Amino acid sequence: MTVRRHLTQVDMAKIVSLSKRRGFVFPSSEIYGGVGSTWDYGPLGVALKRSVKEAWWRAMVLERDDIVGLDSAIIQSPQVWVASGHAAGFVDPLVDCKVCRGRFRPDHVKVYKVVGRGGEELGLVSAVGNALGEVTKEIVERGKAQAKSRGKEFGSLQEAGVATDYPAALIPCPNCGAAPGSLTEPRMFNLMFKTFVGPVEDTASQVWLRPETAQGIFINFDNVLTTTRMKPPFGVAQIGKSFRNEITPGNFIFRTREFEQMEMEYFVKPGDDEKWHDYWVRERHDWFLSLGINKDKIRVRPHEKSELAHYSKATSDIEYLFPWGWGELEGIANRADFDLKQHAKHSGKKLEYFDQEMKERYVPYVIEPALGADRAALAFWLDAYDEEPARAMGAASEGQAPGASDEARVVLRFHPDIAPVQVAVLPLSRNEKLTPTAREVHASLRKRFVTQYDDAQSIGRRYRRQDEIGTPLCVTIDFDTVENDNAVTIRNRDSMRQVRVPIAELPAAVAAQLREMGSTRA
Amino acid sequence: MTVRRHLTQVDMAKIVSLSKRRGFVFPSSEIYGGVGSTWDYGPLGVALKRSVKEAWWRAMVLERDDIVGLDSAIIQSPQVWVASGHAAGFVDPLVDCKVCRGRFRPDHVKVYKVVGRGGEELGLVSAVGNALGEVTKEIVERGKAQAKSRGKEFGSLQEAGVATDYPAALIPCPNCGAAPGSLTEPRMFNLMFKTFVGPVEDTASQVWLRPETAQGIFINFDNVLTTTRMKPPFGVAQIGKSFRNEITPGNFIFRTREFEQMEMEYFVKPGDDEKWHDYWVRERHDWFLSLGINKDKIRVRPHEKSELAHYSKATSDIEYLFPWGWGELEGIANRADFDLKQHAKHSGKKLEYFDQEMKERYVPYVIEPALGADRAALAFWLDAYDEEPARAMGAASEGQAPGASDEARVVLRFHPDIAPVQVAVLPLSRNEKLTPTAREVHASLRKRFVTQYDDAQSIGRRYRRQDEIGTPLCVTIDFDTVENDNAVTIRNRDSMRQVRVPIAELPAAVAAQLREMGSTRA
Repeated sequence: MTVRRHLTQVDMAKIVSLSKRRGFVFPSSEIYGGVGSTWDYGPLGVALKRSVKEAWWRAMVLERDDIVGLDSAIIQSPQVWVASGHAAGFVDPLVDCKVCRGRFRPDHVKVYKVVGRGGEELGLVSAVGNALGEVTKEIVERGKAQAKSRGKEFGSLQEAGVATDYPAALIPCPNCGAAPGSLTEPRMFNLMFKTFVGPVEDTASQVWLRPETAQGIFINFDNVLTTTRMKPPFGVAQIGKSFRNEITPGNFIFRTREFEQMEMEYFVKPGDDEKWHDYWVRERHDWFLSLGINKDKIRVRPHEKSELAHYSKATSDIEYLFPWGWGELEGIANRADFDLKQHAKHSGKKLEYFDQEMKERYVPYVIEPALGADRAALAFWLDAYDEEPARAMGAASEGQAPGASDEARVVLRFHPDIAPVQVAVLPLSRNEKLTPTAREVHASLRKRFVTQYDDAQSIGRRYRRQDEIGTPLCVTIDFDTVENDNAVTIRNRDSMRQVRVPIAELPAAVAAQLREMGSTRA
Repeated sequence: MTVRRHLTQVDMAKIVSLSKRRGFVFPSSEIYGGVGSTWDYGPLGVALKRSVKEAWWRAMVLERDDIVGLDSAIIQSPQVWVASGHAAGFVDPLVDCKVCRGRFRPDHVKVYKVVGRGGEELGLVSAVGNALGEVTKEIVERGKAQAKSRGKEFGSLQEAGVATDYPAALIPCPNCGAAPGSLTEPRMFNLMFKTFVGPVEDTASQVWLRPETAQGIFINFDNVLTTTRMKPPFGVAQIGKSFRNEITPGNFIFRTREFEQMEMEYFVKPGDDEKWHDYWVRERHDWFLSLGINKDKIRVRPHEKSELAHYSKATSDIEYLFPWGWGELEGIANRADFDLKQHAKHSGKKLEYFDQEMKERYVPYVIEPALGADRAALAFWLDAYDEEPARAMGAASEGQAPGASDEARVVLRFHPDIAPVQVAVLPLSRNEKLTPTAREVHASLRKRFVTQYDDAQSIGRRYRRQDEIGTPLCVTIDFDTVENDNAVTIRNRDSMRQVRVPIAELPAAVAAQLREMGSTRA
């Protein structure tokens, strides 16, 4: 197989364009101009995300005796977030402008000195931005205007630090340019979305949308214990939406305000926690490999002590080499007994385990492998992306340089258990002779595999279309099928090998090829 | 098979208790006293709901060529809800008390006249309540107090109408008792949950949590059309959470503020809509029957003209006979071209279909089958509930009346494609001889079926436990298995028949029995 190229930040545009063109992911509310960093999954995107979630659920719940599932509500008692520490601690600092009411992250406010001809300092100007280049241009224009308004001539900009280096009292507003003194000192802003249950909007009815699914598991610890007779080590797994009012979401579906999490809390005896932490780091890393992720693009990075969250004894991230660099794919945290103890304290309920055999009572430690389904789908998708110069496509000869993009063969090399479509059924052409048999063939496959039927345009184009969405196998029905041998051709996305198979043996042959490509489900 | 009893309102307590005891559904945030009418799904509840959603997705998307999937965001542009009519029209009237800030549905404020001895009318008293009995008692006490404060003797209460029959100006507050004039006239309250995106809480950043998934499909109509080459008639299906700030949720998971919907929008040529409406009413009704719902407990009820929503040309409800009476399970609405036209008007984008062959441009009509996953799970669950007097259980003889509840056999007769667990693997006892073989048997089944391994307590108790959660088949490993025949016993939940099967043939035999019980997936 070809070695796949690494996608760069520039190539992200290709993915986003392919996404829109083929129906993976659309900007949400697009006809109304969108809602920042929110996305809708189209037909293929839903299929991809479903496969990812299903593979996780299968590995974590269905194929294990020691983990059960749970599905807790998005709207929970506000007490949950007081106990977890989110109400007080899940915050970002923001500064406000008293004039225009703009709000800014202090580290996004870029501040420069305005210097007049002769080196005279005229004061500070500011602008909001992440990219230094853009800021400088705006700063220069503002600086010129400021110099001019004082009857001075603009000299030069000397780079100064970010806003946090200055007292807010000296910085003009980066949005409206209001005079120094208009900005407040940084204030803490909670990243949880707030809403109200019932008709009255007051503190008694205020609730938050959950920023993580994990707490829904901790508060049900005792319910699970009494209904399932599980004993440590055991886990509770959950898939569901969470919401974080991020000030700076971005990178397509990598960081969004509304996202779907796959979290598992694994309860162990204190003292066994380090062993189990190691176990889960390995287990989760291997899960990505088992579903085809390129081993050179995934790594485990233990957190430095200084990076650790207050609840965490140790955390290791599984990182993926995204087009913009290494980024977190999954975090595996040793949360110790922080959460159960906090909820026990705030609720007044005992959240412990009593070991009948050892006559011993303890608060379990928790190992938490947690990842985002959207982010995982994105990693599988980027990792699967491959381009190769078209082979045997007319004029292009072996020695020629890779041609224009319309000649390159774009292939998503999805693992067969992750691919949005597993088998495409393609009659050579749309006509009365082939269609009935093609439909029968399709019916024989769709009970067992995720299938697509396509009879529009040339067979070459349809192969291209299936390659582009990562379909592992195409089954072609031709005139020989109906006139001679009652057999069809299976074409393999990766090896490009074509084999002729009797229709009666087709489901078994398809399953065998999918297994060869790595499927454990076919 | 026995004819199942109809559960009454009183029996709901049994279901809720079974639910809590076995881990189907727990009150959400229970350790903090709960959040009204919000529920968390435990291990078996998740499994049940997953099966229901999977069966729907399979029937609607995977097994059809004319329907594709979608997954749109919960937080959409506020413009979506302006166009759909929810911003202005998704409202309930409420009255406020200017003194205590209480808010009440006018139809929940019960108002009575206070009459003094001699028939003298002293004024009105009020209280909040649904149940007339409770109200009357409170009203009487207030009436007595009011009479006393005027130096009169309380005479009698004559029943009067509800608050809407009186001008608000004459009614005292039903909460704090503040004098007439404290209540406002009814004002409209929107049932959508409101929140803010980004750090600033103002009208520009205000958004709503979606009250239905349907609109996420309409706004993506053009995206689906251009990426899939679908042509009418075609549909787009979606499963996802929706939120409605109901003033009066209730009946367990029947009506909750946070719920999961399964909606499909089927786009057809105008003129074909009535035919397709009929088709989908039949199709959806038959789907419930195919998954084992008792045909006497399900019915189709076409809406009267006066009941129709403003967007609907015709609607039929599929109703189920819940313990509290007939209730909506699914609505199949002919929404005509209302939604696409509204979104076209508000967004300025064309939302039409151009028929290449007929050279004809039109706005499709929409048929919408829409149901709640929670409610559907509840219906399957209630419908599956069965109790029979224990057979061959010690003292109880054939002629004896059904005994105490601890002698009754509780069985959930779930369809095998809906059951939270399909096969239980039960070694006769937990010991070194049986365990390895039992584990192997379990491993051979879990790849293909949803399984549970249970070796705690007596085999009789374990059968009871599996019956109670509706497991269709139990596989028992005994000493004969390991010492003699290398075969196991399959015990059927409904027929109670036990058959001996060689381990090598077990997966096929399990699949065959599940198919006999109605499975189309085994």
